[in-house]
Amino acid sequence: MTAPREAPDGHELGSAEWTDLSAADRDHLRRAIRLGREGWGSVHPNPMVGCVLVRNDTVVAEGIHRSFGGPHAEADALAQAGGEAKGATAYVSLEPCRHQGKTPSCALALHAAGIARVVYWAPDPGQEEGGGGRLLEKNGVRVQGPHGSEEEWRGENPFFFHRPQGNRPYVAVKLAVSLDGGIAPAGGRRQWLTGPEAQVEVHRLRAGFDAILVGAGTWRADDPKLTVREWDPPAVPPLRVFIDPRGDMGATAAAFQGDGGPVVLAVGEPAVDPTAARLGSRAEIVGLPVGPGGLDMACLLDVLGRRGVRTLLCEGGGRLVATLLASGLADRLYLFQAPLLLGPRRVPAFPASDTPREENGEGTAAPGGSFSRWRRVRPPETFGSDILITLDRSL
Amino acid sequence: MTAPREAPDGHELGSAEWTDLSAADRDHLRRAIRLGREGWGSVHPNPMVGCVLVRNDTVVAEGIHRSFGGPHAEADALAQAGGEAKGATAYVSLEPCRHQGKTPSCALALHAAGIARVVYWAPDPGQEEGGGGRLLEKNGVRVQGPHGSEEEWRGENPFFFHRPQGNRPYVAVKLAVSLDGGIAPAGGRRQWLTGPEAQVEVHRLRAGFDAILVGAGTWRADDPKLTVREWDPPAVPPLRVFIDPRGDMGATAAAFQGDGGPVVLAVGEPAVDPTAARLGSRAEIVGLPVGPGGLDMACLLDVLGRRGVRTLLCEGGGRLVATLLASGLADRLYLFQAPLLLGPRRVPAFPASDTPREENGEGTAAPGGSFSRWRRVRPPETFGSDILITLDRSL
Repeated sequence: MTAPREAPDGHELGSAEWTDLSAADRDHLRRAIRLGREGWGSVHPNPMVGCVLVRNDTVVAEGIHRSFGGPHAEADALAQAGGEAKGATAYVSLEPCRHQGKTPSCALALHAAGIARVVYWAPDPGQEEGGGGRLLEKNGVRVQGPHGSEEEWRGENPFFFHRPQGNRPYVAVKLAVSLDGGIAPAGGRRQWLTGPEAQVEVHRLRAGFDAILVGAGTWRADDPKLTVREWDPPAVPPLRVFIDPRGDMGATAAAFQGDGGPVVLAVGEPAVDPTAARLGSRAEIVGLPVGPGGLDMACLLDVLGRRGVRTLLCEGGGRLVATLLASGLADRLYLFQAPLLLGPRRVPAFPASDTPREENGEGTAAPGGSFSRWRRVRPPETFGSDILITLDRSL
Repeated sequence: MTAPREAPDGHELGSAEWTDLSAADRDHLRRAIRLGREGWGSVHPNPMVGCVLVRNDTVVAEGIHRSFGGPHAEADALAQAGGEAKGATAYVSLEPCRHQGKTPSCALALHAAGIARVVYWAPDPGQEEGGGGRLLEKNGVRVQGPHGSEEEWRGENPFFFHRPQGNRPYVAVKLAVSLDGGIAPAGGRRQWLTGPEAQVEVHRLRAGFDAILVGAGTWRADDPKLTVREWDPPAVPPLRVFIDPRGDMGATAAAFQGDGGPVVLAVGEPAVDPTAARLGSRAEIVGLPVGPGGLDMACLLDVLGRRGVRTLLCEGGGRLVATLLASGLADRLYLFQAPLLLGPRRVPAFPASDTPREENGEGTAAPGGSFSRWRRVRPPETFGSDILITLDRSL
């Protein structure tokens, strides 16, 4: 399988508000942001960062933070620039770090290399005594930043700017739907709605998450492996989590074949012991309280968070996604749309009550607030004939 | 009200297949296509056409077919170019016309002006003895075209490449939906889902159609004028057609106030006489057979076609749009999506049967074939925070 190397591009950023920057400045800063995207799947939980060094209107080096523990984007760029860095402007998608961590302080490194000016996009959060920007200024470097808004920074680096609630991981949900909101045609016949380009993008997305989650209907229908196959696999493969209330998954499931990494089976509490006895070391069994709406998802997220899962991608099915959306547990929605109309007998992705009811607490509907405004992170992207709309829950 | 002058841009066309053209050729041809778009709303039933004249890698003139009966794009460009046209290449979005019509033959005019080469995009259909391209070749002009596919030409100039069935007009339907496919929130409360930019685009679209149609639920809820207000009004305002099975529309309806042009009221046959007596000259009354699914839409389209309506835009409501889609009467779908999730108690745009049924002809579902593949005409467009997806029914 050939792994495409390029992350999707062309996300326009609201640069119109960067009024203190020239058109050339904006182009370089946008380029730095785009470069950072190449770190998706290999830098987490670090942020994705890119850096462009420009002297006399000429790009002298480009740097990328390529992997967790590896050189920061600024260090990568400085190493390539050599003496050319002297007097240059550094455009960085994140405020240079102040502190010595796994790697030396980028603020000090930029200053030492003779960088005259630093333009950065997002601030480095949680820097109580001022970030690298302040340190650079103290050293006589001209600093311009941050630019943009927290929503934009979070849209670009969702995990890094996520504010965790308790142990709960960052949760993204993925849905592939027809234009009339169906996930399967009449009769529930399964088929891929989206084309091969969208499938590759799903594998690319998988590579950036600590864990992948699917519901019982989805694995029963598709028997998925949930591994990263059509993109460069990350150093640590995502944990694969299957919802299985009654503990029905068999030892012959595709997820248990080959070396795809560990599997977690989330079962109802009564099913823990028999499932563990039956599957042995094939899966970690997590027992969850069973409520009227199925297994307790908030509890599962808490358990996964304590197990070290910081980010999770739920790939379906429709009911599990609807539950996560309705209960306010989802932070991001990746909505793939195929140019199909499946008609009135489709299986709906977002089941609607037959008759709109008044707000009397009746029925299965979630509180209206959970369905309030979402924010589109970037313009719609196209993958073959499909569209991807990425949305973040408004802060 | 300020009317924005620029038509939406940035529709990428499949220029990768234009293998006989250089990159510069492709840019000029795409530019010609884009120029043509400025004729939307004023050239119909003529096609939209743009023309770029290039000599020694320099654009010497650009022409647009601006209004029905006015100069063709080639003539417009030649008039500006003067002597500069000699030896130039003409890039035209449509094959130059062969015959003298309302305006002189463009093929002969290009030849007479000394144009050395003509690159065109779409062919001129229905030219039995060969179009202007052949005539130009006979006169020693190098001709390259057509380029692209019928689906692309139809996507760009939908009316011109439409093959009418009987009297039926070209029918486009417009829907504004939430991401979960709702047209209104719980309880059926009406609100605009889309923002002001999308509203302007709807008015721009209106300006290009002979008639606008809405269903009974929509005018009852919104009391719309259906006039072109937020865009340059066309010379002949679109005919406004309201579905009103029982003849309920009152003389105080917004559509009857001011000078918005003629109104057609489509009522059930039994309601013709009382409605006509009540409304007098305010509206033309069209009586239609009443079936189990409401008024006979195929019959309405036939009547409108015979009345001279060649193109019609249906702006809702959801049920009327669903009927047109399901019965195969719609040629194009303008789907506006607002970045909202309305939740399970929303009013669905595409009502789904509760339980998927087997293909036994039961229920209200249309034949599956009517919901088969649609083709996205262009990449999704953004208007403010909303998205517009334009789809054509596959040929």
